[in-house]
Amino acid sequence: VAGATSLCLCLCLAENTEMVNVVTERKAEESHRQDSANLLIFITLLTLTILTIWLFKHRRFRFLHETGLAMIYGLFVGIILRFGVHLPQDLSDVTLTCAVNSSPTTILVNVSGRFYEYSLKGEVQDSKGHDVPNAEMLRKVTFDPEVFFNILLPPIIFHAGYSLKRRHFFRNLGSILSYAFVGTLTTCFVTGLVMYGCVVFMKVIGQLGGDFFFTDCLFFGAIVSATDPVTVLAIFNELKVDVDLYALMFGESVLNDAVAIVLSSSIVAYQPEGDNRHTFDGSALLKSLGVFLGFFSGSFAMGAATGVMTALVTKFTKLRDFPLLETALFFLMSWSTFLLAEACGFTGVVAVLFCGITQAHYTYNNLSAESKSRTKQLFELLNFLAENFIFSYMGLTFFSFQHHVFNPLFIIGAFLAIFLGRAANIYPLSFLLNLGRKNKIASNFQHVMMFSGLRGAMTFALSIRDTATYARQMMFSTTLLIVFFTVLVCGGGTTPVLSLMQIRVGVDTDQDNSVTPDGMTQRSTKHESAWPFRLWYTFDHNYLKPFLTHSGPPLTSTLPACCGPIARCLTSTQAYEDAGQLNDEDTELILNDGGGLMYSDMTVSTDAHGMPTTSTSQAGLYLLAGTSDDPLDRELVFGGTRLVLPTDEPPDPLTSFPPPPPSPPLSDPLRHRV
Amino acid sequence: VAGATSLCLCLCLAENTEMVNVVTERKAEESHRQDSANLLIFITLLTLTILTIWLFKHRRFRFLHETGLAMIYGLFVGIILRFGVHLPQDLSDVTLTCAVNSSPTTILVNVSGRFYEYSLKGEVQDSKGHDVPNAEMLRKVTFDPEVFFNILLPPIIFHAGYSLKRRHFFRNLGSILSYAFVGTLTTCFVTGLVMYGCVVFMKVIGQLGGDFFFTDCLFFGAIVSATDPVTVLAIFNELKVDVDLYALMFGESVLNDAVAIVLSSSIVAYQPEGDNRHTFDGSALLKSLGVFLGFFSGSFAMGAATGVMTALVTKFTKLRDFPLLETALFFLMSWSTFLLAEACGFTGVVAVLFCGITQAHYTYNNLSAESKSRTKQLFELLNFLAENFIFSYMGLTFFSFQHHVFNPLFIIGAFLAIFLGRAANIYPLSFLLNLGRKNKIASNFQHVMMFSGLRGAMTFALSIRDTATYARQMMFSTTLLIVFFTVLVCGGGTTPVLSLMQIRVGVDTDQDNSVTPDGMTQRSTKHESAWPFRLWYTFDHNYLKPFLTHSGPPLTSTLPACCGPIARCLTSTQAYEDAGQLNDEDTELILNDGGGLMYSDMTVSTDAHGMPTTSTSQAGLYLLAGTSDDPLDRELVFGGTRLVLPTDEPPDPLTSFPPPPPSPPLSDPLRHRV
Repeated sequence: VAGATSLCLCLCLAENTEMVNVVTERKAEESHRQDSANLLIFITLLTLTILTIWLFKHRRFRFLHETGLAMIYGLFVGIILRFGVHLPQDLSDVTLTCAVNSSPTTILVNVSGRFYEYSLKGEVQDSKGHDVPNAEMLRKVTFDPEVFFNILLPPIIFHAGYSLKRRHFFRNLGSILSYAFVGTLTTCFVTGLVMYGCVVFMKVIGQLGGDFFFTDCLFFGAIVSATDPVTVLAIFNELKVDVDLYALMFGESVLNDAVAIVLSSSIVAYQPEGDNRHTFDGSALLKSLGVFLGFFSGSFAMGAATGVMTALVTKFTKLRDFPLLETALFFLMSWSTFLLAEACGFTGVVAVLFCGITQAHYTYNNLSAESKSRTKQLFELLNFLAENFIFSYMGLTFFSFQHHVFNPLFIIGAFLAIFLGRAANIYPLSFLLNLGRKNKIASNFQHVMMFSGLRGAMTFALSIRDTATYARQMMFSTTLLIVFFTVLVCGGGTTPVLSLMQIRVGVDTDQDNSVTPDGMTQRSTKHESAWPFRLWYTFDHNYLKPFLTHSGPPLTSTLPACCGPIARCLTSTQAYEDAGQLNDEDTELILNDGGGLMYSDMTVSTDAHGMPTTSTSQAGLYLLAGTSDDPLDRELVFGGTRLVLPTDEPPDPLTSFPPPPPSPPLSDPLRHRV
Repeated sequence: VAGATSLCLCLCLAENTEMVNVVTERKAEESHRQDSANLLIFITLLTLTILTIWLFKHRRFRFLHETGLAMIYGLFVGIILRFGVHLPQDLSDVTLTCAVNSSPTTILVNVSGRFYEYSLKGEVQDSKGHDVPNAEMLRKVTFDPEVFFNILLPPIIFHAGYSLKRRHFFRNLGSILSYAFVGTLTTCFVTGLVMYGCVVFMKVIGQLGGDFFFTDCLFFGAIVSATDPVTVLAIFNELKVDVDLYALMFGESVLNDAVAIVLSSSIVAYQPEGDNRHTFDGSALLKSLGVFLGFFSGSFAMGAATGVMTALVTKFTKLRDFPLLETALFFLMSWSTFLLAEACGFTGVVAVLFCGITQAHYTYNNLSAESKSRTKQLFELLNFLAENFIFSYMGLTFFSFQHHVFNPLFIIGAFLAIFLGRAANIYPLSFLLNLGRKNKIASNFQHVMMFSGLRGAMTFALSIRDTATYARQMMFSTTLLIVFFTVLVCGGGTTPVLSLMQIRVGVDTDQDNSVTPDGMTQRSTKHESAWPFRLWYTFDHNYLKPFLTHSGPPLTSTLPACCGPIARCLTSTQAYEDAGQLNDEDTELILNDGGGLMYSDMTVSTDAHGMPTTSTSQAGLYLLAGTSDDPLDRELVFGGTRLVLPTDEPPDPLTSFPPPPPSPPLSDPLRHRV
């Protein structure tokens, strides 16, 4: 392994060293102040966003989601920074000519005997930027793209994994995986092809100002195929849409982020040997495929492994006596998954996603009640902050980025391409899936999935990662427009579309879980899936769960008799105690429908915990645009889409498993409105 | 305002640009991997620390606190990195000679037409470091000192301010302020003078290898006068020592951090004009004093202002309906205090401390119950992580820092100086304070305060901030030793010393507050303080609290009649409702004795909430080293030190204010030990 190369530049000078020091210190201080001020801009933006979100929630506006709001605020600040503020510039450019054979990551500069270390921040474009006023300042508010990948994305993705609704997720696992893998690949290639057509056309009529290869088109396809789980699902959550639609959308958008990121790396890795670096080459394609599979499975394995390790540690150490330690450990282990994957050259974001899913499935069951709520709240907060930060930054960067290439033809082509790409994903795949599914994906579900494929944080992070070439700059500008359009228009239009498509809303997922005794739910979940999932389910339930958590049947009863001693050793005392009762935490939801933010907006939420209604045969309730504020009745049976609970009985609150611990009591929303 | 100066170096080269690109990318990737791996080392360290802390808590070892543990682990890893691992080095030093007149913050390097941006990381020592094996790697695990100031210290200090026990704190405010201001200044000057004597002596016998001025001695005095609130107070908390001793120790160590940081900046700012830069100069001294007062009052004002703003925002927006938004806002506003202060050139850490205190006093009362627990837990976690990170880093840096200067004479002198400095703070001041206090500071209290003046995170952060000169390096090495010694020896010895000094333990502070109806507590708190504090207390209770929070008497009853309309407008409906009841949240504790970690270790803690015992005249219980594990009885009357609650009555749980919301139910600590 080669260490970092460092380069020594001796900058010799005959001046008073101490004076130089003072000047340097003052400059460093100035720069530190400037950095603080820049960060302050973002914090203020977020604060404003929060206050406005509150206002919107308070007044029950639903046409604009918080992420859209953050974006719009960002746009305003971008305009102000770009056109409003004029700072004097003091650029004392000293041009020196020296011979160096590359750009090292570290430079040591020798100024009259004192060494200063400089680290590579990245390539900057040549002095074109100086035409723009405030170029220096705009460059300063521009973050290192790696910040998005290494600091802001991980909590968002982890939270998504951690809050996957397990039961509904597993019930639709086959379809979700198909959409995520086959579907994303399809979208990527369809988009890439359409874009290639567009680019060729542009070249013919002379509208293209630089190189744009087929690999660039594919790369564009990969980055815009990542749909965002945030905005639409917040709305879905708030309105409590049908659980299956929710599971499909959520599962798909979470997993396709992982697929898209690995796919884009693989496309970058596609580099045929020799001079013809942008033509088709079989071996390079195979290599790319290998990279894709290797990255994906490696990251998956790493995430799952750390998740399992956390489960084992929390199971065997009885750390649950100390919630703070437990939460800290949980947080650190999750973060170390990311770092470990990055250090090994895998994709940290993907590893963190699978770590989140594994921890939700196993580790969560071992945590103390306090840690459960602590971790939930912590990741919820981190997710909220990171997400809003990214969206405000998106707005701001629209004006602060200095190398935009807006090409009308390319933009029109791109919008067409993402539409076709999404359609080529949803409709044919749904048709194929419906051939095998008992619980068909209705056509109105398909339309909603088509409409709600917003592009968000992941698309943005992938496109800003490299904006060095003309092609990448054009992609970045176009991607920004796509994100703005989908978040504002599609995000805002979700509620009307749901009502137009007659999607069932007001479904209480908690109730599904607390109503039926364990055995039944389990059987129905099992029977509904295809055989590989049934096999996995049995294995997981009988061996993995008891091994990794305190729940599930004792290993002594599931393992063959010869393994008796080991089984006794590995089964926790709690599992024996629980074995008599008919509860399985498998049926418990991880996050109470995504946490207090969404929940507390609904007047119905406060009494949704605790007292299950017994109205089992009410007619389905459709969302009518005008009535969305009324308290929504919940109902359990709905024609066609509900096959899980055919034998609903009025629940007996004494024998059935108590509903998952409600999030700490929300202050009564009505109290402060009088 | 001068913008950042940038410097253009043209590094011209006739080579294939694309190949260079690939090489550069690979190197950047390599460097990113290395960074991830380094961070992973720390995460692993923290994880190990957490597991060991759990083991210690589980087995009830008290001789070593978690911070000491983190430090020891850090030492081990430091040894391994320094002596165990041998990485091949690949330093291709290219030495170029160019004339530059300073070290700018940004360098643009032109490598064959492409510009790369480099940012100043700081000065590095010349190639002496290359003698040490793994110099490159050791340099990489060394963080930018600013990380400590800008990322790790703020949450620690904020948490300290946020968890100040308000009632006991305000009751002893005069003494605390004296210790913090007069005491810290005394310590600083006494230490500085002793060190100067030591340095002069060393110069005489030729033991000094470089310059060491009087200002350096004073600077050393300032940095070692910051006592650490962490370790001792964790033990105090666990053992529930006397509330007044706790308040004195906590208040002093929290505030003297703020004093020490501002003091050290003022000493650095002491720079007489002309050539004689290290002699006495009246105007420079005055300037330094001005800097001290300006920095301190500015930072104080800024912190208090943001705190007040948060209080107003949370009061008037009814944001409490949405706990997530509320928590996010609270977090962001607290952070923006830090950034705002830094951007204005004040001391962010000090601003954040006073912001924490203000928010604890006002904003906390406006939060919803869920947000109260969320913010508490969030800052507790951040504090825990930051603290343990700093202490592991301290251990690691002992071996990874490459410019240690260990001078035995200086070290001995320093230990003597801090002993004398601490003694000159505690004993004379306590004597003077006792002249005015009704509630005397007993001599055993003084001995404990003397003994427990540990040096921790702040001392370390201040000393690592600048290690450029010989004097600073020697200071840094000595400071590290002081921190190790005080944390391990004094920290570990606290329990025996408490028992030796016959300090009362097992005091339940919660009970004090829930027992007496509001009026009485208030009066006694008021009567005990000196008149300026009484004045402040009345003003705060009658005007500020009702204005900023939902609690306190309605403004309509406290303001003169002419202000009627404004008063009605500013008083919340809740205040009217509460006015009839005899409760004042002023008497409520902010943090339930520092949170679950400490609490849950005590068998007594679970039933300490909720059911107040009525044994009002039991004999005081002293800690005997052997009996510390027994459930500790609580008692209310203790000879001499308790003047506040002379008319204790058995509490009536129905009329008195309920005890502060217990932290979410801890899992029964006995359940998993069977």
